[in-house]
Amino acid sequence: MSVPRDVAGWRSLRLAADGWSVEIVDQTCLPDALVWRRLETLQEVAEAITAMRVRGAPLIGAAAAYGLALAARADPSTTGLERAENRLRATRPTAVNLAAALERVGGTLRALPEAERAGTAYALAAAICEEDVAINRAIGERGAVVLRALAGSRGRPLHVLTHCNAGRLATVGWGTALAPIYRLHADGVPVHVWVTETRPRLQGALTAWELAEAQVPHTVVVDGAAGHLMEHGPVHVCIVGTDRTTAQGDVYNKIGTYPVALAARDHDVPFYVAVPGPSIDWRLAGAQRAPIEERDQREVTHVTGAAAAAGATVRIHPEGSPALNPGFDVTPARLVTGLITERGVCPASRQGLASLYPEMVT
Amino acid sequence: MSVPRDVAGWRSLRLAADGWSVEIVDQTCLPDALVWRRLETLQEVAEAITAMRVRGAPLIGAAAAYGLALAARADPSTTGLERAENRLRATRPTAVNLAAALERVGGTLRALPEAERAGTAYALAAAICEEDVAINRAIGERGAVVLRALAGSRGRPLHVLTHCNAGRLATVGWGTALAPIYRLHADGVPVHVWVTETRPRLQGALTAWELAEAQVPHTVVVDGAAGHLMEHGPVHVCIVGTDRTTAQGDVYNKIGTYPVALAARDHDVPFYVAVPGPSIDWRLAGAQRAPIEERDQREVTHVTGAAAAAGATVRIHPEGSPALNPGFDVTPARLVTGLITERGVCPASRQGLASLYPEMVT
Repeated sequence: MSVPRDVAGWRSLRLAADGWSVEIVDQTCLPDALVWRRLETLQEVAEAITAMRVRGAPLIGAAAAYGLALAARADPSTTGLERAENRLRATRPTAVNLAAALERVGGTLRALPEAERAGTAYALAAAICEEDVAINRAIGERGAVVLRALAGSRGRPLHVLTHCNAGRLATVGWGTALAPIYRLHADGVPVHVWVTETRPRLQGALTAWELAEAQVPHTVVVDGAAGHLMEHGPVHVCIVGTDRTTAQGDVYNKIGTYPVALAARDHDVPFYVAVPGPSIDWRLAGAQRAPIEERDQREVTHVTGAAAAAGATVRIHPEGSPALNPGFDVTPARLVTGLITERGVCPASRQGLASLYPEMVT
Repeated sequence: MSVPRDVAGWRSLRLAADGWSVEIVDQTCLPDALVWRRLETLQEVAEAITAMRVRGAPLIGAAAAYGLALAARADPSTTGLERAENRLRATRPTAVNLAAALERVGGTLRALPEAERAGTAYALAAAICEEDVAINRAIGERGAVVLRALAGSRGRPLHVLTHCNAGRLATVGWGTALAPIYRLHADGVPVHVWVTETRPRLQGALTAWELAEAQVPHTVVVDGAAGHLMEHGPVHVCIVGTDRTTAQGDVYNKIGTYPVALAARDHDVPFYVAVPGPSIDWRLAGAQRAPIEERDQREVTHVTGAAAAAGATVRIHPEGSPALNPGFDVTPARLVTGLITERGVCPASRQGLASLYPEMVT
C-alpha cells in the first residue's frame, strides 16, 4: 500500500492486473487506512455503491459501468443485462451519473450480439473513466482561472470553503471542486481550504485526508460553522461539487450545501459549483424534482471512526429518538454565482448552460 | 435515580440536603444516564461549567452564583471573592448570564461585612434560580400564544424546529425555547419537534432526551438538513434560545443557529428566539461584538458517545488535520421574526426591546 502524493496520477478505480476484475479504494476505511478492494461481481459493485465504499457522483457512474461489464461477462443475455441494470439503479437515486452510465452502456449493449457485449462493456467503462479524468482536469483549469482572479496579488492565502468531498476520491481522478484547488496549489498560489465535516457520513474527513496527502493547508469545521466563517473566516470563495445539476442551474448536492450557499450570499462570498457535463440533468424541467435519497437513521444516531486501535461505532443520540437522514439538498440557482464546467464558467441558468452546451438544447 | 416526567417540577440544579453543597445533573452523561453530581468547591463549579457538565446560558448564570456562594463560605475575604469571580469569569465567555450573575452577587457581597457574605450569596443564588424558573414559565406562556396562532385549527401537528438545547436542561427549570413547546403539548395541541443534532457537542441529543422524557414527538436531523427541511419538512416555525442578545436584537447562540435563520428566511418560515431578560446585553452597542468562545479542536475531531456498554470516544477526522471550533455564531436581527421574552414578544430591534424593558434604556 503506497500513499499517493501525486494528484495527477491518482485513480480511485482501476482494472485489476487480471484484466477483468475491478479495484476500488474502500472509502469506508478512510481517513484511517488506504485499502484497495477487489470487486468480481455485479453484486459486489452494487454493495460497494450502496455502502458508500465508492461514492461521489462521477465515481458512482464509472463503478456502475464496470458493474454492467462484470454482469455481461457472467451473463450477456438481455434478461441478465436488465436484471443488472435494475440492481445497480436501485443502489442510489440522486446522482444523475449513475442513471446516465447505465443508459449509455446498457443501451449500446442491447444493440449488439451477446458475444460482443462483455468486451464492449469493458471498453465503454474504460472510456467513461478516461472521460471523467479529462473533464475534471479541464474543470481544474477553468476553475483555477476563477480562483486566481479572486486570489489576485494578495500574497496572503486564498481561503476557499468546500462542503462534502468533491475531490479525487469522488471521481476517477482529479476531482471536481478540488481540481481547481490542486491546480492553484501546484502553481504555487497560497491556498487554504475550510473543510466542513459533512454530517452524517463525514465526507469532510475524506477531503481533509486527500488535501493532507497533497499537502494543501486546510482546517476542518463543523457544518454549522459555515455561516460564522463567512464573517470571521475569512472565506473568499466557496466551491462545491454536484450530484445532479438541472438545466436551470439548480444544484443537487450533499445535504448541507444549501445553507452554505445561503451564508455565502448573505456575505457576498462567491459560491461556485464545479459541474462536469455528465452531471447535468437536461431533462428535469421547471418545478420537477429529482429524488432525494433518504438514508438509514443509524448514520445520524451513530458515528463510526477510529478508536485507539480498531474501528469503533458509538451511539450519540438517545435510543428511541427517531432520526431523519436525507442525503442531499437543493441549492437554488439564484444562490449560485457560477457553474464551472469543463467547457467554461457560466451563470446558473438555462441560458447559461445552453451557451456552453448548445447541442443539448432542442 | 428517578426519571422525571414532570416538566414543571424539574430542576437542573439544586441545593443538596446538607444545605450548602450544590447538586447538578451532569449533562456529559446524558442522553445515556441521568447522573446527579455534588459540587462542594468553587473549583468544582468552575470545572463543571468549563467541561459543560452544566451548560446553557441561564443555568451557567445560576451555577456561577452558587460557585460564589461556595467560595464565600470557604473564604469570605474580598481577595478571595475577587479570585473566585476571576476563576468563574474565565470558564466560558459568550453567555452574558454568567457575567451578570457574578456582577450581581459579587457587587452585593463587597458592600457587606465578611460575616454576612456567605449567607447573602446563598440567598442571591437561590433568588437567581427562582427568577429563572419564573421567567421561563412566563416565556412558555408568551411563546405558546405565538405557536398556538401558527398551529391554528389545522388538526395536524405543528412542526417546530429547534437548534441546540434550550430546554429545561439549559436552565434551572422549564427551559426557554422548549418552554412554549411544553406548554402547547400540555394543552393538548399536537406538536412535533425537528431537533438538529448541533455538532460538535451534540446538544440535540439533550433536546431529544428531554422531549422523549416529556413524551413530545420529535425527530433528530443533522445540522445541514435544516435548509432541506424548510422546503420538505414541513417546518412551520423555528424557535431557539440565546446566550446573549444585544439591545439591537442580534442573537448570539450556539454555532449553527445563523444558517438555520437564513434557511427559515429563505422559505418565509418564522424564526423566533426565546430571550429571558437576563440574557439581553444592554451595553453592547452598534458594531461592537461580544467574544465568541473558541473551544478545543478535539470536540470536532472526536465524538464521545455510548458504546455497547461503556462510554467511548472515537476519532472521526484525520490525525494531523487541524480543526477550528467556534462555539457560537451571531444571527443578525434582520433574520429574526421576533424575540419571545418573559414580558412579551417584540421585534428584534432596539425599539422593540425598549418597548418591553423601558427601564433599561437610558
